[in-house]
Amino acid sequence: MDPHRALGYARAGRKKFVSELKEFLRFHSVSSQPERAGDLGKCAAWLARHLQGIGLDRVRVIPTRGNPIVYASWMRAPGRPTVIIYGHYDVLPGEPLREWRTPPFTPTLKNDDLHARGAADDKGQLFCHVKALESYLKTERVLPVNVKCIFEGEEEIGSPHLTSFIARNRRALRADAAVISDTRMLAPDRPAISYAQRGGLRAELEVTGPPNDLHSGSFGGAVHNPLQALCEMIASLHDAHGRVTIPGFYDDVRRWGEEERAFMERSGPSDEQILQDAKVEQGWGESGFSLYERTTIRPALTLNGLTGGHQGSGAKSIIPARAVAKLSFRLVPDQDPQQIAHLFRDHIERITPTTVRSSLRTFSPIKPALVDRNHPAVRAAAFAYKKGFGALPVFIRSGGSIPVVSTFQELLGCPAVLMGFGLPDDHIHAPNEKFHLPNFYNAIATSIWYLAVATKLRGAQRTQERAKGRSS
Amino acid sequence: MDPHRALGYARAGRKKFVSELKEFLRFHSVSSQPERAGDLGKCAAWLARHLQGIGLDRVRVIPTRGNPIVYASWMRAPGRPTVIIYGHYDVLPGEPLREWRTPPFTPTLKNDDLHARGAADDKGQLFCHVKALESYLKTERVLPVNVKCIFEGEEEIGSPHLTSFIARNRRALRADAAVISDTRMLAPDRPAISYAQRGGLRAELEVTGPPNDLHSGSFGGAVHNPLQALCEMIASLHDAHGRVTIPGFYDDVRRWGEEERAFMERSGPSDEQILQDAKVEQGWGESGFSLYERTTIRPALTLNGLTGGHQGSGAKSIIPARAVAKLSFRLVPDQDPQQIAHLFRDHIERITPTTVRSSLRTFSPIKPALVDRNHPAVRAAAFAYKKGFGALPVFIRSGGSIPVVSTFQELLGCPAVLMGFGLPDDHIHAPNEKFHLPNFYNAIATSIWYLAVATKLRGAQRTQERAKGRSS
Repeated sequence: MDPHRALGYARAGRKKFVSELKEFLRFHSVSSQPERAGDLGKCAAWLARHLQGIGLDRVRVIPTRGNPIVYASWMRAPGRPTVIIYGHYDVLPGEPLREWRTPPFTPTLKNDDLHARGAADDKGQLFCHVKALESYLKTERVLPVNVKCIFEGEEEIGSPHLTSFIARNRRALRADAAVISDTRMLAPDRPAISYAQRGGLRAELEVTGPPNDLHSGSFGGAVHNPLQALCEMIASLHDAHGRVTIPGFYDDVRRWGEEERAFMERSGPSDEQILQDAKVEQGWGESGFSLYERTTIRPALTLNGLTGGHQGSGAKSIIPARAVAKLSFRLVPDQDPQQIAHLFRDHIERITPTTVRSSLRTFSPIKPALVDRNHPAVRAAAFAYKKGFGALPVFIRSGGSIPVVSTFQELLGCPAVLMGFGLPDDHIHAPNEKFHLPNFYNAIATSIWYLAVATKLRGAQRTQERAKGRSS
Repeated sequence: MDPHRALGYARAGRKKFVSELKEFLRFHSVSSQPERAGDLGKCAAWLARHLQGIGLDRVRVIPTRGNPIVYASWMRAPGRPTVIIYGHYDVLPGEPLREWRTPPFTPTLKNDDLHARGAADDKGQLFCHVKALESYLKTERVLPVNVKCIFEGEEEIGSPHLTSFIARNRRALRADAAVISDTRMLAPDRPAISYAQRGGLRAELEVTGPPNDLHSGSFGGAVHNPLQALCEMIASLHDAHGRVTIPGFYDDVRRWGEEERAFMERSGPSDEQILQDAKVEQGWGESGFSLYERTTIRPALTLNGLTGGHQGSGAKSIIPARAVAKLSFRLVPDQDPQQIAHLFRDHIERITPTTVRSSLRTFSPIKPALVDRNHPAVRAAAFAYKKGFGALPVFIRSGGSIPVVSTFQELLGCPAVLMGFGLPDDHIHAPNEKFHLPNFYNAIATSIWYLAVATKLRGAQRTQERAKGRSS
């Protein structure tokens, strides 16, 4: 199907699209805050109404034990390939609010950027595909391929109910490819396809001592301070070279050959670029690896938050009774999140001083994922980028974790195509998140082109399989 | 003057006294929270009206640059000694509120204990003397000695304006002794006089890295985490033996002889007792010293609070941009708080990793203080305790810091008599603070007796001076 009428519709509709995205961004759909469940419900209902409005079939808000999944499909192209489009409408909390220049849930346009929590991660990226579908349906009344949209509301808390939903609906969800737009490009004119994501595991470590806070005058020097003990334990989790000290932690980390590392060096960001993106002057971490390698093919343990004792203004002379740290692992092939949880638990038990007690909770395990760069569904994406952004994408690895990638690959057997439209300076997971509008427009065009070329997916796949058969 | 009519009045008035103390405890006079300045003003006004009501002269609420000082005197006994009574009407914050079994500013009677923030530290203890003065004035219409009451509103933030007030009024504040009740006894039947307090110094240490929180997926493993760096710095401030690692920190610490250490062992709490008070199973800190010694003749560095990154419920995948720790030193003779501030600043500069930046603020310096156990003003207190509690007091050192002790000694040249009425399990500076009412009643009697025997202070002092003259 010729995509030009759809492309024309998309160009003409930019103003309307931005104003609709703003509506979408107003919902406080913060999945990590249970008190926001109502807002997630409202956001899901809004999204479902929107999908109905653009002409998709079988639109449903499917309840889970957590936040609902918004599902829609269009299956009126029998014999043609089927593409899953995945995105998430949940977002991270806006806190710390005082660091935002504009309120996180009041979408604000500044030059070419739309500022709001979720603008890039992931409401904005999800919306690119929605607008691409609309552009076809409002012009051609049909789509080039069959489509199944799965928009979940729990990605930021590790997608706890998505896997069981997909497992229960394996047959109904069969597809030739799954497109996931929740990653980033290198620059507005340098698109990228992520072919690897790190896995993950979250942990909460609490250290307790006396049953109540103690007066630091009366007891300071004679009682071990649980907050200090927690700092001591945290500090000991890395050695002086930035390596994680948990015994066995690196045992299953895959050693990549020279070819892959050379490819990474050619295609990935330089140390300089990464430092510039982070706005820091110096790198840190494992020696012998570039910063790009440290954030992709090497695992990491990050302290996300720590709290204990007196907070806020003023002073308080106490030995606090307890302290809590929030940590997260980023894992790489062939580390197994469950195995890492065991190693970590054993290690924490070993290093807890006898003067305090510790308790560890691990949750949200995510397996690391890899996608074949040469799969036709991935090559179709490269072609679409070239059309949408005027440049072929580079193939990069992501440091983040997208739970659904390994779920799609393992349960549905279809490749996950990570077409990211974010930018390195989008401040996702941080104050002042934004989405670059030229990327929004080009992404819509890219999605329109992808649906057009996806018509040839099955043929291309057969050709690839035959080629593989000949060479083996 | 025979104290028996005053003692009778005090016994008969207990119910009224408790109800008045409850009124006093209702004020949110939290000096460390600037937004509570209005409550401190109201509390000071209430206290001044109360002092007027019991019959003191020259009652004034004296403004400072911070919270007002409540002053009152009774100087109608010419030729007789003058006793300063010092106390503070400010309190620590009630937070964390969820850990209180009764609201901190709703005084609640449970068995023999009155629960409220400030019940023991220091509104309740201050009030013992107020009620003793009332008992004389309502029965005899005169006091046995001249009295000057100084009740400040900034003790919990290091008394920043008291020293200049005393310095400005050195002549007007001349006295033979200053009674301070802001310490504790060993048990309800074991009164104690504190003859040493540790000094102090507060510090706030901030560590910063990237200008914004970073996504821990994108940058975890390649950028030094300021929160982790802060933990590493904090952990390094003590060695494995609980000693502070700041170079030069122990240089000026006085080495006490066997005689004083033997006296301390006889008179002070055992390790067992201290562990029981703290409700912990194991001690911690410098080897070679008892827990009592560690909290009195040895200095300490305590981490009072630390905050960084994501707090509260849920998870957030970030490398936080900054983290802050609140610390406090307890110092002993002959350490100088200003000198310690210099040493600490130099050390923090040295240990800050090059991958992050740190900034340190030190404030509230307090000199360590010692009182001569044999001074007649102290011996008079011992006699008064015997009368009020039925037991002679033990002489103990306090681990805490009372800024005014060295101020009185240095500026007014009068000994500070630390008649404490608190108990080890009063939970001062912690949730569920309380004051034991039998102590309240016995303390009022003790104060009544002290004022009675204070009439002989000058004669006793002359005798002591003559004795010293003979022996030298």
